[in-house]
Amino acid sequence: MERNTVTLFETIVTLLENKKYATLRDILSTMNPVDIAGVFEDIQDEKTAILFRLLPKELAAEAFVEMDDDTQELLIHGFSDTELKEVIDELYVDDAVDIIEEMPANVVKRILRQTDPDVRKQINEILKYPEDSAGSIMTTEFVKLRPKMTAEEAIKRIRRTGIDKETIYTCYVSDEHSTLIGIITIKSLLLAEDDDIIENIMETNVISVNTLDDQENVVQVFNKYNFLAVPVVDKENRLVGIVTVDDAIDVMEEEATEDIQKVAAITPTTDKPYDKVTVIETYLSRIPWLLILMISATFTGMIINGFEKKLDACLALAAFIPMLMGTGGNSGSQSSVTIIRSLSLGEIEFKDIFKVIFKECRVSLLCGVTLAVANFIKMTLIDEMLLNTEGVDWQVALVVSLTLVVTVFFAKFVGCSLPMLIKKLGFDPAVVASPFITTIMDALSLTVYFVIATAVLNI
Amino acid sequence: MERNTVTLFETIVTLLENKKYATLRDILSTMNPVDIAGVFEDIQDEKTAILFRLLPKELAAEAFVEMDDDTQELLIHGFSDTELKEVIDELYVDDAVDIIEEMPANVVKRILRQTDPDVRKQINEILKYPEDSAGSIMTTEFVKLRPKMTAEEAIKRIRRTGIDKETIYTCYVSDEHSTLIGIITIKSLLLAEDDDIIENIMETNVISVNTLDDQENVVQVFNKYNFLAVPVVDKENRLVGIVTVDDAIDVMEEEATEDIQKVAAITPTTDKPYDKVTVIETYLSRIPWLLILMISATFTGMIINGFEKKLDACLALAAFIPMLMGTGGNSGSQSSVTIIRSLSLGEIEFKDIFKVIFKECRVSLLCGVTLAVANFIKMTLIDEMLLNTEGVDWQVALVVSLTLVVTVFFAKFVGCSLPMLIKKLGFDPAVVASPFITTIMDALSLTVYFVIATAVLNI
Repeated sequence: MERNTVTLFETIVTLLENKKYATLRDILSTMNPVDIAGVFEDIQDEKTAILFRLLPKELAAEAFVEMDDDTQELLIHGFSDTELKEVIDELYVDDAVDIIEEMPANVVKRILRQTDPDVRKQINEILKYPEDSAGSIMTTEFVKLRPKMTAEEAIKRIRRTGIDKETIYTCYVSDEHSTLIGIITIKSLLLAEDDDIIENIMETNVISVNTLDDQENVVQVFNKYNFLAVPVVDKENRLVGIVTVDDAIDVMEEEATEDIQKVAAITPTTDKPYDKVTVIETYLSRIPWLLILMISATFTGMIINGFEKKLDACLALAAFIPMLMGTGGNSGSQSSVTIIRSLSLGEIEFKDIFKVIFKECRVSLLCGVTLAVANFIKMTLIDEMLLNTEGVDWQVALVVSLTLVVTVFFAKFVGCSLPMLIKKLGFDPAVVASPFITTIMDALSLTVYFVIATAVLNI
Repeated sequence: MERNTVTLFETIVTLLENKKYATLRDILSTMNPVDIAGVFEDIQDEKTAILFRLLPKELAAEAFVEMDDDTQELLIHGFSDTELKEVIDELYVDDAVDIIEEMPANVVKRILRQTDPDVRKQINEILKYPEDSAGSIMTTEFVKLRPKMTAEEAIKRIRRTGIDKETIYTCYVSDEHSTLIGIITIKSLLLAEDDDIIENIMETNVISVNTLDDQENVVQVFNKYNFLAVPVVDKENRLVGIVTVDDAIDVMEEEATEDIQKVAAITPTTDKPYDKVTVIETYLSRIPWLLILMISATFTGMIINGFEKKLDACLALAAFIPMLMGTGGNSGSQSSVTIIRSLSLGEIEFKDIFKVIFKECRVSLLCGVTLAVANFIKMTLIDEMLLNTEGVDWQVALVVSLTLVVTVFFAKFVGCSLPMLIKKLGFDPAVVASPFITTIMDALSLTVYFVIATAVLNI
């Protein structure tokens, strides 16, 4: 698939240079809008305006929606007002909103000037909802049916008005107060008798989201129920829009990427793909955490300084510091990342905290004891007897092994409870994940190590 | 929503104990299959068989599909052969395959005995495909149309046969050799004139996947093109099935969870939610990496041992080891996790490796220099002048700062190139992520540290 795209791209560029417009039109007309958008992004100069004019109107709008901000802006600058209006008229309202949100103020003004007053009102409605809310990602173009209609009338209505709707596959039934009372799929409509009444065949157990719900909740509904669209209602339970599955998928991938980034101590600043992010943007998303973690690691250094005399007394202890800190960090991350992901997917909630802690404690004891036994055998058999490492005896092995058990226990305890508490306080649990917990664990495991060493070795 | 489910659950249990079956039937009939499945999972005893018999046939099958393996197995054990056949007959083929894959052999035999020979053949076809391939997640029940049909004939055909199809929203047009030649949505069919011929109005630029493609590729197609279903073809380009968006979403979340788990050094062994995984399963998915990483951290210890005399000569150096190792690990994870996610989403490929390395190198120099400057100022102003820390002077500060620049550079270089190489070799890049790179970086940063210290401090 990829190889074909490349060859095709070269052909298109050559044809464009040779002004073979008729051929170009034929080629572009057979292509998927997403692939056309890719061609425009790769060309990215004034010539794209010529290419854009070759596209059939509907395909042009579909491809336009799929392009990145820069390419869209470049095209808009080349558009006459009439051309701009033509494109805007073809867009779904939620796509128009997405574009407007990314454009500079002067371009937004120009777009809104070319928009029908009716659509402009809808756009402004959606723009009012807070970022990342259900309202901000919904569309207001959906099929509304009345409860007393027959299946035949409903299908006629869909055939008449469906062209402008983002989906016709799920239709929404509301009463005279615009209250959502049922949904019906086009599959049920087509399989029903012509004179069946909608209110008798519709699904009345409707699952909806609220305009102010977080988009993460919307995604959880899609995950749980396998819907193609979810209705969005306001505080008075009035139907104001729908979120379609394609938009939910975008949010899903975005949220998963954000979780992964935060776990790796990256500030998610942009939803652009890797190859579109500049070096400076990448730098800015990474340096804050590196700085914070560097400063916080100073405390670990201070702990080592504080125990310098004990290290002097038993230099062999120093060699095991990296292993203990590493194991503590890894154990903590395992728990925190598991919990963060389960919270994201809605598998667990704050009320499960004691169940979660109890489970993690049992797992941590199993892990800790396994590691301690493996370590004790390794240190006494390999380090002491085989390699004859200076200063390593069964007492040192005991200190390291005991530290492992305690450290892994603390690591899993902190790793599972901290994200849940943070979430309960209304913050994002992913930001406290691995790196932060690693720093806490570094300090904790060192302290445990030196305390146990002092007790066992009498130093 | 959650609160309602709980109250409702208690009501259902009470009604079941009091044998109010008519009321129960009324309540269950209004519920969503997913929520019904939740009720069955929470009850999980023999009584569920009674409850199941109260459900209307179609709803019963829909709820059955949504239950977890244990509940399904429990129900199947309680079914008579006739009941089992009734449920199986209502299932879509791909759902039947999912269930069969999770059941013990004797249950599978019983299920297949109750299946129509025709359906059994389809099930066996799908079972033949390798795990995680497109073939293994597809369904064979879709609407097939002929190119010469009119729109009216097509809609009639859909109304006649649609009830058994998993989706009727995208229909597939194939020629007499079963070769896929086009697709048409029901939206286009409904909006077309009655006598329009399919081959004139269908979409001919069809994007399909191969039966043997990895399910990750299938997900990438959904991500890129916003489809509701993707056709699956065999080597001869014959249409054999489709993957619907709801199954793609499941794969999407599963793959994202797996990536997150691997980044946190957890072996993904199961796709069950957190609260369904046993303590032993959790232990087994976590202990292998903890053991491997513990052993590999031994090398870090050996490096420290090797430089013991230099540490003795300048004890102040020891205090900065955790910070340097931490920063190296964090820098490496940032790059590796970013690259792993971009590879998963199909944003970059192996051919981009030099572009990626070039970009990461520039980012690493920016990060490294920023950290080095911040560290130098902190060490000379705070550690040396303010706190008067023993042994810290501007030369030690220089050693630590230089080490930061070199370490961050190596960390980002290894962090971005290793996952791409591993992927190229046909392995999963996520398994080499953070923890492994952290171990490599620990060893590397220590070596760099001691080499620079030897040179600058003449020890």
